[in-house]
Amino acid sequence: MSPSAVASVNKTDMASNLTEAGVKHTIKDTAPSIAVNGHSTGLQELDASKITFTPNENPKAVPEANSPEVTKMSSCTDHMITATWTSKTGWTAPSLIPYGPLALQPHASVLHYSTSCFEGMKFYRGHDLKIRLFRPSLNTVRMLNSSARISLPAFPPAELQKLIETLVAVEGEKWLPKSRPGSFMYLRPTMIGTAPTLSVNKPNEVLLYIIACCFPDFNDPAATLGAHANANNNESPNGNSETKPRPGLKLLASKEDTIRAWPGGFGFAKVGANYGPSLLASDEAHLRGFNQILWLFGPDSEITEAGASNFFLVWKTREGRTQLVTAPLGDGIILAGVTRRSVLELARERIGGEELEVVERKICMWELEEAVNEGRLMEAFAAGTAYFIMPISLIHYRGTDLHIPFADDNYGSKLKQWLMDIMYGAESHEWGVVVQERSLIPSDLDE
Amino acid sequence: MSPSAVASVNKTDMASNLTEAGVKHTIKDTAPSIAVNGHSTGLQELDASKITFTPNENPKAVPEANSPEVTKMSSCTDHMITATWTSKTGWTAPSLIPYGPLALQPHASVLHYSTSCFEGMKFYRGHDLKIRLFRPSLNTVRMLNSSARISLPAFPPAELQKLIETLVAVEGEKWLPKSRPGSFMYLRPTMIGTAPTLSVNKPNEVLLYIIACCFPDFNDPAATLGAHANANNNESPNGNSETKPRPGLKLLASKEDTIRAWPGGFGFAKVGANYGPSLLASDEAHLRGFNQILWLFGPDSEITEAGASNFFLVWKTREGRTQLVTAPLGDGIILAGVTRRSVLELARERIGGEELEVVERKICMWELEEAVNEGRLMEAFAAGTAYFIMPISLIHYRGTDLHIPFADDNYGSKLKQWLMDIMYGAESHEWGVVVQERSLIPSDLDE
Repeated sequence: MSPSAVASVNKTDMASNLTEAGVKHTIKDTAPSIAVNGHSTGLQELDASKITFTPNENPKAVPEANSPEVTKMSSCTDHMITATWTSKTGWTAPSLIPYGPLALQPHASVLHYSTSCFEGMKFYRGHDLKIRLFRPSLNTVRMLNSSARISLPAFPPAELQKLIETLVAVEGEKWLPKSRPGSFMYLRPTMIGTAPTLSVNKPNEVLLYIIACCFPDFNDPAATLGAHANANNNESPNGNSETKPRPGLKLLASKEDTIRAWPGGFGFAKVGANYGPSLLASDEAHLRGFNQILWLFGPDSEITEAGASNFFLVWKTREGRTQLVTAPLGDGIILAGVTRRSVLELARERIGGEELEVVERKICMWELEEAVNEGRLMEAFAAGTAYFIMPISLIHYRGTDLHIPFADDNYGSKLKQWLMDIMYGAESHEWGVVVQERSLIPSDLDE
Repeated sequence: MSPSAVASVNKTDMASNLTEAGVKHTIKDTAPSIAVNGHSTGLQELDASKITFTPNENPKAVPEANSPEVTKMSSCTDHMITATWTSKTGWTAPSLIPYGPLALQPHASVLHYSTSCFEGMKFYRGHDLKIRLFRPSLNTVRMLNSSARISLPAFPPAELQKLIETLVAVEGEKWLPKSRPGSFMYLRPTMIGTAPTLSVNKPNEVLLYIIACCFPDFNDPAATLGAHANANNNESPNGNSETKPRPGLKLLASKEDTIRAWPGGFGFAKVGANYGPSLLASDEAHLRGFNQILWLFGPDSEITEAGASNFFLVWKTREGRTQLVTAPLGDGIILAGVTRRSVLELARERIGGEELEVVERKICMWELEEAVNEGRLMEAFAAGTAYFIMPISLIHYRGTDLHIPFADDNYGSKLKQWLMDIMYGAESHEWGVVVQERSLIPSDLDE
């Protein structure tokens, strides 16, 4: 596939959101391979143009939307893209190959020391039948930052984006057919330490791979919301039995024995180490009939994240101003979500002004409780790639149910519609990056 | 192999050190498989007696002590033991099979969500030519606690110990030959989530495996201490150029942007998630000529761990008492080391009294600085399975080198010798668990 077949990278997105750590990482680890006066100085850089193609001779059938293998997130497409890195040689040429198991030595780094980071993205079949990614350069730059936090190698984010677009270009026609406009699939770029050594050091062998998986639409009532979303929840009954159940996530506030992240830790990075230790709390939530954990931090029970999504609320201040509020990124305990950022930017650009003040600041549980009790809370929602924008209906905190208001014309719904318009091409916008599809036919293979 | 071939389990060790989380985990997850009135209630329990044997037809050569593949910790033995678990069936019969790569789906849980925990142990070829484990039941109970913290399944620790002993029994004769008394190998029981799904839930498919690897003797001057132990260290030159370099670890104190663990986190558990995020700091330490990080926590810079070992010091109080001090376990940020515990117990039993007060309490860096400046610090050492007991010679903290005293007849050396006497059979002690060796010959295979 020639680089020209790949949609252009949004340069504005690329440069932004790059933290100091990410910049240092890029400079330090990428520098040796930068050509100096036309001479390479050593390690090979990740280069999407070198990709080779090996078609899958045994392609699978595409599962129905919201069939069990889709809701279980266990079904991936026919191909994946891989590239390996060693500390001696740098990056190998990437390969598009049939999806299949990885052979890892039992003493491989990732199996013991959590040398793993990833991204979560989607690609969308628009109502105009084009396929789009949504702000992919934010994901690739964030992946560079995540890899730096766990001492995995650097790469040019634009090259990773080209590889992602290549997988989408090849898989799009079959797995996101034009007969299903308005649907999406999930993308998971992943980097793992494969070095076969029990030495607790940064791995000198690494595998980068990109897979595409079927994913349920959590905004579709037919999809499952967490493991036991429909379980009876005796602790949190619907307060008003006369109204029909309303949509929204039920969240269980975390307790002091399960803290997701800490300043100086790695909560801001999309590394594996943030997830395994969170399962204990979220499993309890599921068993008790909640969808997710509301992650709190510190003596004032600051709200940090909702499940693996960012948390937003809309309230009236006592002075009568309407505010959209989410937790700030400064402490490094909160993931810099692409959806979070997009919500903030759209709210500032398209609403803002006198109508809606957009605020990034710490939110303590007592403030939320006061707002609920004084009737000032207007809505709350979770925002992230997996769940997209989902209203929150209830928060269970220290034995008490806090019922969160909901109105059909709320800000969360409005922002969600704007984002969907961009994702599915109803609005032409630089955030929606069109990918040119291609068939993996033999005549292409000699490129 | 019949269970009777396995050395008896130290029941005292088994029951102790079991935290509340571990107990709950055992009860909750193991209960369904406990026989009630002779009828099994469901899931299969891990059962070492069901093990099957498949000999390796292509055995490797044993590397020389401290050869490159040994110092790189990249060489494992000919066999490994595996057992799989699913949420529907429980544990399968364990298998002893040739060591070789694991086939994991690219979307397997452990590669994305750090669903991985492990143990670090050694087995020892005694001067009496017997093979011993050291307090193995402490490791197997700790592994149960670690698995609970990341929602991996429970198992009877005694069964895991039998499996560990089976691998040692089979590999001992070749890999730890009687011609090398006083040597050891490293054991790594590991549990990983293998479920092929991107769903962020506790994995419903798990692999338990045990491998044995060649490991350098860090107490041997020929072995490498960290990646760059012999690098020039301009920041921490030897203060006295007239004395020859003395043994000991040089530690770089951690900074606020890299915190190893926090209350409510998982620092107490031997889970993969504690390691990957630590590599950034330890890589900086190695590049600057230090061996390891001294992990600090909180506004008072409490000393928590030294590298992946526990930290000990001996000082005189201003009142003139001699104290052996290490950080307490209560906050859950420090690993409950087997060596740590053994050091505390031996110090209390065999020294103690007026001579040495044994104290578990928080140690702040300003206290250590004062003790150094006032000449009250007598020694400091790191204690853990990998490094065993290693004196600490220097701590670099906020731009200043703190030189740690060392005397040949220090307490660290005395405790180390007592432990070695138990490990290598010079002293008969219940902590040294003898393993009966066996050949993996065809006549055994039908058992």
